[in-house]
Amino acid sequence: MSSSAPIIVLVRPQLGENIAKAARAMLNFGLTEMRLVNPRDGWPNPSAGPAAAGADVVLDQAKVYETTAEAVADCEHIYATTVRKRGVTKPVVGPDEAGRRMHREAGRHAILFGREASGLETEDVALARHILTVPINPEFGSLNLAQAVILCAYEWSKQAGLVQPTAEEEILPPASQDDLDGLVAHFEKLLGPRGYFLPDSRAEATRRTLRGILTKPGWNHLEIRTLRGILSTLEREPRD
Amino acid sequence: MSSSAPIIVLVRPQLGENIAKAARAMLNFGLTEMRLVNPRDGWPNPSAGPAAAGADVVLDQAKVYETTAEAVADCEHIYATTVRKRGVTKPVVGPDEAGRRMHREAGRHAILFGREASGLETEDVALARHILTVPINPEFGSLNLAQAVILCAYEWSKQAGLVQPTAEEEILPPASQDDLDGLVAHFEKLLGPRGYFLPDSRAEATRRTLRGILTKPGWNHLEIRTLRGILSTLEREPRD
Repeated sequence: MSSSAPIIVLVRPQLGENIAKAARAMLNFGLTEMRLVNPRDGWPNPSAGPAAAGADVVLDQAKVYETTAEAVADCEHIYATTVRKRGVTKPVVGPDEAGRRMHREAGRHAILFGREASGLETEDVALARHILTVPINPEFGSLNLAQAVILCAYEWSKQAGLVQPTAEEEILPPASQDDLDGLVAHFEKLLGPRGYFLPDSRAEATRRTLRGILTKPGWNHLEIRTLRGILSTLEREPRD
Repeated sequence: MSSSAPIIVLVRPQLGENIAKAARAMLNFGLTEMRLVNPRDGWPNPSAGPAAAGADVVLDQAKVYETTAEAVADCEHIYATTVRKRGVTKPVVGPDEAGRRMHREAGRHAILFGREASGLETEDVALARHILTVPINPEFGSLNLAQAVILCAYEWSKQAGLVQPTAEEEILPPASQDDLDGLVAHFEKLLGPRGYFLPDSRAEATRRTLRGILTKPGWNHLEIRTLRGILSTLEREPRD
């Protein structure tokens, strides 16, 4: 676990099921440290288990605090999530900028999430140095708790060296120019006798167009070989 | 609505409630066009309404299709979401790169999401030019459908205010799936009678390989038209 991983602090959460969903959201992106401030139905909460779906490790280690101040007493960087900005006088960042800061800045990071129905109280927000707001459709904002958590966890993980899909990783490089020339020549051999390059005055432009189309894909040598097989098949007479 | 906004295609979704949650996830980030391929419980589905929580506008406009191919026939850029890479030979991108591409590349974009329990089938993936994978905790991957949708919608929305008009508009977008299907069918029509798809036990895999090779280039409609002309020429007898 990277020391940059933020602690997820759920302040006065209502439903155990939502706590469990937040735990799943966290673990999907490698976050494991959850803190609960005064959960409505106490803790542990039997209704959390079933929804955790394997994220029990997060729930089992969750610590419970009486107040938000106690929950973040050992943290250096505190973010308060709000759905909308409400006359705040603190710097506002999105999940992406917050994720970057966590990797850049030494110290422990915590993100505060308010109760499902009403969000964070003013006193909770007062503890934070930053407001974390997810930019959302102004005409329809209904992010739930686990969704807000997952977006923050996801953005943190993007910088964290989880398996990143590297474009083209398992992919063969384009075939050599030789291979490509062979394919073009094969096409020309089939097309010429069928009058494709007539009239002669257009032949050069037509050849150029053909080469352009066949060059665009960047086929690898296996794909070129398959296409050569297709052309050889087309040279045969149909059987039926 | 920006024209870069992707269409969210749910392929054989199981629970109406999950369709509704996906609609909410979409609308939070400004996506409104949903398509459903053969939903298990039919459509409209009364169990979707309550979970939509105001995203009914998305559900009301959702269109239903029999097959994935029909659902994306008018789309130029198709992304297939998978949780993990499984021997794929297509470029793999994350939600961030996919979101950037949608703003950069002209044409209609669609993202395919598979059924809750099992994901997309191989034939669905074969329709796509890109695999979209969310990089996830290798020891705990349990993203649900709505969460996968929300991460894609969120990443798209991050770029939505930043669209820069570029010279790329002069480049023709890839042809529609319809055009591409026509080309694939034309190849198959010529190759079938010549025994290319024999033995029958290999026919499906061979068709998939052919489609993969023809999907890769992202040819525009003029290029596809030229290729159709080439195939028509090859149907003729050589003159000499």
